[in-house]
Amino acid sequence: MKLAFVIYDGLTTLDFAGMFDPLTRLKTMGFVGNLEYDVCALNSLVLSFENLQLIPTKVGGSLEGYDYIIIPGGNGIAEQIKDDAFLSWMKTANPEATMAAVCGGVIILGVLGLLAGKKATTHPAMLGYLNNFTPYVVEDRIVDEGNIITARGVTSAIDLGLYLCERIAGKEAREHIQKQMDYLNYDCK
Amino acid sequence: MKLAFVIYDGLTTLDFAGMFDPLTRLKTMGFVGNLEYDVCALNSLVLSFENLQLIPTKVGGSLEGYDYIIIPGGNGIAEQIKDDAFLSWMKTANPEATMAAVCGGVIILGVLGLLAGKKATTHPAMLGYLNNFTPYVVEDRIVDEGNIITARGVTSAIDLGLYLCERIAGKEAREHIQKQMDYLNYDCK
Repeated sequence: MKLAFVIYDGLTTLDFAGMFDPLTRLKTMGFVGNLEYDVCALNSLVLSFENLQLIPTKVGGSLEGYDYIIIPGGNGIAEQIKDDAFLSWMKTANPEATMAAVCGGVIILGVLGLLAGKKATTHPAMLGYLNNFTPYVVEDRIVDEGNIITARGVTSAIDLGLYLCERIAGKEAREHIQKQMDYLNYDCK
Repeated sequence: MKLAFVIYDGLTTLDFAGMFDPLTRLKTMGFVGNLEYDVCALNSLVLSFENLQLIPTKVGGSLEGYDYIIIPGGNGIAEQIKDDAFLSWMKTANPEATMAAVCGGVIILGVLGLLAGKKATTHPAMLGYLNNFTPYVVEDRIVDEGNIITARGVTSAIDLGLYLCERIAGKEAREHIQKQMDYLNYDCK
C-alpha cells in the first residue's frame, strides 16, 4: 500500500495536513504494517500559501507506483492547472490508482479530465466553476466515485483522510484513529 | 499583532496546521492588516513526527517580541521537555504574551511552570500526566485562563485557532474564516 501526498507551491497547508495526519496514523498506530508514503513534489522545495516551506520526500519521477494519489487545494492551483510539467507529472499516476482530492485539488482532477461523467464536490465557493468539468456537481462532504474521491473545503480534508482510513483498514481502525485525533464530530455525509 | 508558531522535531503536523490555517487567514483574508507571523524553531530544519521536513521562517533568537506564542503537540515533546536550550528559548517569551498550546504542547507549558494554579486541558490520553503540573485539570475542548490557553487533542487545534481568531478580531471575522475553512461543527465548548 503506497500513498503519494502531492504538494505544490501555493497549497493550503491544512488541506494537506488534514489528510496526512489520519492516513499516516495507519502506519504509526500499527494498522497497516506495509504502508509506505511519500510527500511528492516536482520541486525540491515547496512554498505553501501561508509562506511555509516544506521539503518533499520525493522530487519528480513517476507517480506510477502509488495506490493513492492525494491532492490538496490552495490558491496555487491557478498556476498548477496551466503548468504542463505539473499536469504531465500527474498523468504518470497508474490509471487504476485512487485519486483523492480536497477543495481546489478537485479542480486539478477536472483539468486532467478525470471528472467527466462523475459526481464530484469541492469548496462551496468553487461549485459553479466545477461545473466546467462535470454536470454532476454535488454539495456532499465527500463524494466517492470509486477511484475518484472528492471532498469539499479545507477542513473536509480531515473527513476525507478518515474516510480513506476506513476504506483501507476498516471501520475499527478508523474509529481508533479518529479517537486519537480527538475528532469528535466526524460525519462524512 | 505578532504571532509565533513554534515548531520542533517530532511535532504533529496537524497540531500546527490546525492553528496556523485560521490564524494566518486573519491576515490573508484582510481582517487584521498589521498581523505578522513567524514559524519559529531553534533549528533551521524541523522533522515532524510523520517525517515531513519543515523550514522555519525564524531560527532561534528571542521570542520576546510576540503577542502570541502558539505551541503544537507531538511525540517530540518527550525530548523537548528535557532540552534546556529549548526550555530556555521558550522562557524568552514576554511574560505578558499569550501562550496557546494544544495536545502535548500543553505539557511544555506545565514544565515551564506556567500552569501552576491554572485550569488546563490536553489530549484525553495525557490528562492524568497533566495533573503533575496543576490540580485543575478539565476535559473541556478549550480552556481560557487569560494569557494561558490550552486545548485537547490534535484536531482541537482548529478549534483553538478559531477561538483565537475571535479573540483577536471578533466574532464576525471568526465566522467568515470558519466558513472559508468549510468547518461545519465548530463548538469550542
